[in-house]
Amino acid sequence: MQRFALIGAGFIGAVHARNLAADPGVDLRLVADLDPARADAVAAAHGARGTTDLDAVFDRDEIDAVLIASSTDTHASNLRRAAAAGIAALVEKPIDLDLDRAREVVREVEAADIPAMVDFNRRFDRDHAALRRIVADGGIGELQLLQLTSRGPELPPIDYLRVSGGQMRDQAVHFFDLARWIADEEVVEVHAMGSALADPRVAEVGDVDTSSTTLRLASGAIVQIDCLRCTGYGYDERIEAAGSAGLVESARMRSGGVTRFAGTRAEADGLHAGWFERVQPTYAAALRSFVEALETGSPVGATLRDGLAAQAIAEAATRSLASGRTEPVVHD
Amino acid sequence: MQRFALIGAGFIGAVHARNLAADPGVDLRLVADLDPARADAVAAAHGARGTTDLDAVFDRDEIDAVLIASSTDTHASNLRRAAAAGIAALVEKPIDLDLDRAREVVREVEAADIPAMVDFNRRFDRDHAALRRIVADGGIGELQLLQLTSRGPELPPIDYLRVSGGQMRDQAVHFFDLARWIADEEVVEVHAMGSALADPRVAEVGDVDTSSTTLRLASGAIVQIDCLRCTGYGYDERIEAAGSAGLVESARMRSGGVTRFAGTRAEADGLHAGWFERVQPTYAAALRSFVEALETGSPVGATLRDGLAAQAIAEAATRSLASGRTEPVVHD
Amino acid sequence: MQRFALIGAGFIGAVHARNLAADPGVDLRLVADLDPARADAVAAAHGARGTTDLDAVFDRDEIDAVLIASSTDTHASNLRRAAAAGIAALVEKPIDLDLDRAREVVREVEAADIPAMVDFNRRFDRDHAALRRIVADGGIGELQLLQLTSRGPELPPIDYLRVSGGQMRDQAVHFFDLARWIADEEVVEVHAMGSALADPRVAEVGDVDTSSTTLRLASGAIVQIDCLRCTGYGYDERIEAAGSAGLVESARMRSGGVTRFAGTRAEADGLHAGWFERVQPTYAAALRSFVEALETGSPVGATLRDGLAAQAIAEAATRSLASGRTEPVVHD
Amino acid sequence: MQRFALIGAGFIGAVHARNLAADPGVDLRLVADLDPARADAVAAAHGARGTTDLDAVFDRDEIDAVLIASSTDTHASNLRRAAAAGIAALVEKPIDLDLDRAREVVREVEAADIPAMVDFNRRFDRDHAALRRIVADGGIGELQLLQLTSRGPELPPIDYLRVSGGQMRDQAVHFFDLARWIADEEVVEVHAMGSALADPRVAEVGDVDTSSTTLRLASGAIVQIDCLRCTGYGYDERIEAAGSAGLVESARMRSGGVTRFAGTRAEADGLHAGWFERVQPTYAAALRSFVEALETGSPVGATLRDGLAAQAIAEAATRSLASGRTEPVVHD
Repeated sequence: MQRFALIGAGFIGAVHARNLAADPGVDLRLVADLDPARADAVAAAHGARGTTDLDAVFDRDEIDAVLIASSTDTHASNLRRAAAAGIAALVEKPIDLDLDRAREVVREVEAADIPAMVDFNRRFDRDHAALRRIVADGGIGELQLLQLTSRGPELPPIDYLRVSGGQMRDQAVHFFDLARWIADEEVVEVHAMGSALADPRVAEVGDVDTSSTTLRLASGAIVQIDCLRCTGYGYDERIEAAGSAGLVESARMRSGGVTRFAGTRAEADGLHAGWFERVQPTYAAALRSFVEALETGSPVGATLRDGLAAQAIAEAATRSLASGRTEPVVHD
Repeated sequence: MQRFALIGAGFIGAVHARNLAADPGVDLRLVADLDPARADAVAAAHGARGTTDLDAVFDRDEIDAVLIASSTDTHASNLRRAAAAGIAALVEKPIDLDLDRAREVVREVEAADIPAMVDFNRRFDRDHAALRRIVADGGIGELQLLQLTSRGPELPPIDYLRVSGGQMRDQAVHFFDLARWIADEEVVEVHAMGSALADPRVAEVGDVDTSSTTLRLASGAIVQIDCLRCTGYGYDERIEAAGSAGLVESARMRSGGVTRFAGTRAEADGLHAGWFERVQPTYAAALRSFVEALETGSPVGATLRDGLAAQAIAEAATRSLASGRTEPVVHD
Repeated sequence: MQRFALIGAGFIGAVHARNLAADPGVDLRLVADLDPARADAVAAAHGARGTTDLDAVFDRDEIDAVLIASSTDTHASNLRRAAAAGIAALVEKPIDLDLDRAREVVREVEAADIPAMVDFNRRFDRDHAALRRIVADGGIGELQLLQLTSRGPELPPIDYLRVSGGQMRDQAVHFFDLARWIADEEVVEVHAMGSALADPRVAEVGDVDTSSTTLRLASGAIVQIDCLRCTGYGYDERIEAAGSAGLVESARMRSGGVTRFAGTRAEADGLHAGWFERVQPTYAAALRSFVEALETGSPVGATLRDGLAAQAIAEAATRSLASGRTEPVVHD
Repeated sequence: MQRFALIGAGFIGAVHARNLAADPGVDLRLVADLDPARADAVAAAHGARGTTDLDAVFDRDEIDAVLIASSTDTHASNLRRAAAAGIAALVEKPIDLDLDRAREVVREVEAADIPAMVDFNRRFDRDHAALRRIVADGGIGELQLLQLTSRGPELPPIDYLRVSGGQMRDQAVHFFDLARWIADEEVVEVHAMGSALADPRVAEVGDVDTSSTTLRLASGAIVQIDCLRCTGYGYDERIEAAGSAGLVESARMRSGGVTRFAGTRAEADGLHAGWFERVQPTYAAALRSFVEALETGSPVGATLRDGLAAQAIAEAATRSLASGRTEPVVHD
């Protein structure tokens, strides 16, 4: 059993707590949060102890692994402390919104040689993972075009957008990672075009809510990513990979299987209302994979280097939004 | 080029006329109808001659084949005349509503040895035919269950129902034929249960509009056929065949491929409004097959014996509706 | 918190134990089984106590409710003990394979006035329940035809079939219940036709593995139920309800959402391999509903009378399999 | 009846000839081609006269309208002659590969005030047209993202690619037109990224076979178009329009409705093998629309100005492929 501490007891922290409690290989010991009531509440629901004291978290005698789900600006320092203490870490993306600082932290973690994984949970979506296996097994021949859709459902609060780093770093970055992971090759250059259509305040904070990003991979294959911050039809995520010998699609997921036919129309269950309903199972699956890596010493499902690579694409895409030019991706 | 005469210039006669005119192997010469204006109108649209004179139709020097689309009570006599004249015949089902009379006619036609085919057009549905090939090729292993759906869209006029022979002989008979054709074996016994739900006058004329018929095949495989005379959602036809190694489905056909997602719902194109829109291509395909049989001397796609067999099942099903018992199918 | 005891720690007992442990309104106290090791193992996984002593289970001071998942022949006696002790009971179907004995037990339970529910878990399938709401809300007008499919995936052991009561009582009974529940009316008469196709030993034990059952409801609406014991394509469950104003379908459920297009073919995820994968969420939902009924005093989701009614249909269907006749359903 | 002449009796000319012969408002008089045998063959199949003499075509006393399906480099001169003769014209795209020359011709045609239409046949696809109506009727709120897919199935001959003007002008141009037509607004700027992946000779002739093009509309809405010259899975065309209140999709079209389930997999009909099978009905529908415009004096379904606008986008996209920059669209 891996003894875990969880840092962060907000909405997603509570999700992680449930998954930690349910995972057969995890003994959830501590839940840390700046807010002691919140820490205690989440801890109590799963037989763990709440704390505000990070020294208790980074105590190698008591804790084997930490799940970092605290606010973005603390990811880097928590990773550093885990590295210093020799405690394994599963960290929410991004490592740090500042790519240079993120790179520095990764070097430290690598020097400390602790198991560390970025929680790119979409990699653990059952359908996306099946799509990737088909691509890897040659089921579509040579990859030509990869198309990823990430839409909605609702505009985050403007205050969040102000500090989010923008749509490329905050939303598209998951799909930059999926693109590298599915194609199993690096991104060479990027172009992004975006608009603020949902709310005029989006433009005021220098962001976009509707964008199309095009990537060129090393092989010449093209990747297309469309991102909407808000839709009128719930949360929509889908992937298509077209190659010389076929197409594979991880389809948009319906919330149910009921259809009513009346007159000349058919009415059916639409998409999930929220992103969380849609991707919920991926969090437990990502955790399971991390715990297996700890147990067996096998590689983690998404390394910190994967995290940096996705961020580097987001940087180039953010530059392209402003310049209108195709921008090179500067890897490390 | 096969020189054709068409008998019957009503709604379905006009459909046949268009298909005859378009078929590359057909020279449509005559359109015969009791109503001279109707005969002329349909004929003129396709460069043929209208007539009320059946002697002109059954003139072997001028005509190679006749398509009999006149009223049901004339099918038998027209088949007889075709046999006597040595003219090939494609006849709408049924051969005759009276099964004994139908058998007599078939014996005459067989004695005359003319090519003759019953227009069981559903056999020529692209999807149904593909399903049958998969069954025949062992794609589902040994057949266990065959399920056929025939629904709607609208109650025929009560005056038609009065002379139609009832839902088994008039509607289900197409699916009795499909069952024999897909399973490639004979029906041993039948049970039918039905109700008159759509209109009280249906019961008054001794008919039902909603029924479920169960057939046992010689192999023991079970066939389920559900028939509705009217629906609120257009015309619905589908087939499933389940076997020891799998299932094959010829799905209900949508009228289009557009879906709108809004809120948590999806709204899409439903079914075809009418049966004709759904099955239209099968008429031309059935004709094509008949003409090929004439050109090559190969067997026709559905023999008069097939017509008799389907009618024999309809007789047993009609008896079962009244008796509540499983009834044996009496072949010939 | 309702203090629960679970009787039966076999496969399905272990499923119930997990759901009891996870339900927010349940405090799982005891797990009873004839086999003490099995009782202890299941209990230990969820912080409960294992026992072989049913006196401990039926102790009203310690236990509020019992979940009866022991072997079929013990359902009745356990229900009786619950009634005598004044303990609420959730019981796996059937109440007793002998309908007369089942009726007697139900009268006793009703006299004792304990909350009691039959675990007709399919009623708690998200899609089936949505279909029922649409029917109840008039979304298809007047019900005309209800079609239920229950197929596979594998033949149970012959030794199980020998004591199962036959396909009608063991498999179809779930769908007899769904039919009553969806249509919200009683079944008047039944016809069943079946064959033993999967294995000759099925016939030797007097059972069938392939059947079509037709029910007539009080309104005249027709119900069609097809049951296969084994398929070559996993577990298949679907429902269609057609009415005067439309159709609603709870579609067969795919195991995933990935499709590969290559050449002229598309290959996709098929059905769930087993019935359990398909219906798993319904067990927790049924339990949740029972616990809510206990907490609020509201009616349970499926009464023991519902259990008797479904069994009465199964009796008539079993008679019909032998007689070939449409058989009346004899309600109490 | 509109008296038509057809110029061009190649593959697509023969398709047009069939549609002209079948259209109830058309009297097909002449089929002109440089190759007299080809002209005669196509003409004879439909009771028309073959000719190599364009003077006969542009004779206002004999001909009301001309369908220009000759080689691309003759479109402009044939349009000019139609304008000079006062004969209506339906012309295959493009008007001329040289946009300046195309503009000049359009001015001449407008001065002559003949009815003239570009054969943007995709506008007449049943599903695409339904999607557009839903967008126009506010069914998705304000348009945010429009996604168009145009893929395969096979690389055209390299000799054709050499003179085609490149993927933007030859393939994507249809979808530039659809984008303007669906969004009902103009394109402001364009970015295109492409690769030659299918065959090294594609790069040698300066073309790409795989591309992603992003357009910004006047409203700020974003359009994404992906084009593949060849696929391993037939011809794939689909459209999605996402807006503030929903999504509408014109889905990829399957060639049939049969699915086989076996084991844990489902195998179904894939896409149409060729583009022609997929879009065939659109040619007759476009013609029908043109003839109705001639009969009623109503506006044509796609003006020559629409043709110019789509070409202007293709010019900007072609520049962007080379420059890597977002390029402004220069309208007239």
